Amino acid sequence: MEDTTIIYGKNAIIEALENGEREFNRILISNNARADAKIEKIKKLALQNGIVFQFVAKEKLNSIEPEGRHQGVIAQIAPVKYIDLDKFIEKHKGEQSSIVLLDGVEDSHNVGAIIRSCVCAGIKGVIIPSRRGVLINSTVEKTSAGATSHISIIKVNSPVSAVQKLKENDYWVIASDHHAEHNHYEIDYTDMNFVLIMGAEHAGISKSLLKLADYRVKIPMLTNFNSLNVSNATAIILFEYVSQLCKKNNKK
Amino acid sequence: MEDTTIIYGKNAIIEALENGEREFNRILISNNARADAKIEKIKKLALQNGIVFQFVAKEKLNSIEPEGRHQGVIAQIAPVKYIDLDKFIEKHKGEQSSIVLLDGVEDSHNVGAIIRSCVCAGIKGVIIPSRRGVLINSTVEKTSAGATSHISIIKVNSPVSAVQKLKENDYWVIASDHHAEHNHYEIDYTDMNFVLIMGAEHAGISKSLLKLADYRVKIPMLTNFNSLNVSNATAIILFEYVSQLCKKNNKK
Repeated sequence: MEDTTIIYGKNAIIEALENGEREFNRILISNNARADAKIEKIKKLALQNGIVFQFVAKEKLNSIEPEGRHQGVIAQIAPVKYIDLDKFIEKHKGEQSSIVLLDGVEDSHNVGAIIRSCVCAGIKGVIIPSRRGVLINSTVEKTSAGATSHISIIKVNSPVSAVQKLKENDYWVIASDHHAEHNHYEIDYTDMNFVLIMGAEHAGISKSLLKLADYRVKIPMLTNFNSLNVSNATAIILFEYVSQLCKKNNKK
Repeated sequence: MEDTTIIYGKNAIIEALENGEREFNRILISNNARADAKIEKIKKLALQNGIVFQFVAKEKLNSIEPEGRHQGVIAQIAPVKYIDLDKFIEKHKGEQSSIVLLDGVEDSHNVGAIIRSCVCAGIKGVIIPSRRGVLINSTVEKTSAGATSHISIIKVNSPVSAVQKLKENDYWVIASDHHAEHNHYEIDYTDMNFVLIMGAEHAGISKSLLKLADYRVKIPMLTNFNSLNVSNATAIILFEYVSQLCKKNNKK
């Protein structure tokens, strides 16, 4: 069984069972898991959906998720289905559609938290380069709290080609960059489709991608400690977009 | 040696050496660490500051930081000095001062990322309840990228008493709450000292704290997937404050 095909943790599994968008193979529950409300809920949802669950020794779970964060329950599921960028563009033609590209973001916790924020902010997809990035593994799944099932995940070999293709299809390119002239709140996100490019925390965005940007934005800091966590930086920019949209809609 | 007295990872150690606010006991470098620019920088900074460094077997480092994320270097440092709330209030009397209280936030990665965002946003302190919270351990230190040295960390037994004391000292109490009527961008953060209370992701803020709030704010979502990571939620609210302040200062 590959690492990419499990989710663990009670809340993540309940979330995935409830939204029904992932294909479950089976659920493994520890013999000595406390029979709390969440475990009962998992069993009930599994029964309702015809999903097999099995009681196994705790050691079995530990061998699948060695860091012991499984809380007594692991679900084996079909891996995330990556979708093709062309299909993504086609699917969202004619509607407001925005997407986030992660350039070199390699920490699974960050990728999971970013996917979560993207779903909350109504972002339709996340692009992950197959070389400079972390693919969807079980830490990403867990950290995303089930969000990976609510958004298109697009794996690309060339982020530059992906961004060029998005530009050709009327997406504006916004790059987050320490050295930008404009603050992130100085552009109007509400009247366009955009691809927001976020870079790795130390290296930033690669030059070839930065060149393609229509807008470069920075998040202003109140101290010289200029070092936001990348998932926090992404959330700040995305929710500036959300705030702008809410303010605009309230005005109407 | 206690868990609270190490930092690991090249960048976190360089950051702590450069800002000079932490007391180093010694630095352990793996015999087989690649002699890259960062390791060289650590050695140089240690020499400049009269800090002992030792070469040790990799196994020694693995025994101190068993998850193997040390990148070949671990610093043993004096533990974070928690400061007293009274001293904090006294220290910042007469200046703009705001603080974040974490009520039940128990994930070290989140606490680290939140401390980082606080420092970037010019927040002066973070309050961590000794019972419902995670104290500063090495994961927090690492995730904070050295930010724990740039902010007052206040450990309290009773968060309710702490908030009451802040209220008596002219801090406004803002609580982040899913059920709030107002969006986070609808209040003016720039003309007050505030304590921002953030709760655990599922449980939220405890009722006794929520009662003390002068403002309750929510972050609007564009989908029903109403589940932001707590460090992302904190960053969104804090940088709304930063944006308001920047806009105001530019107008002057």
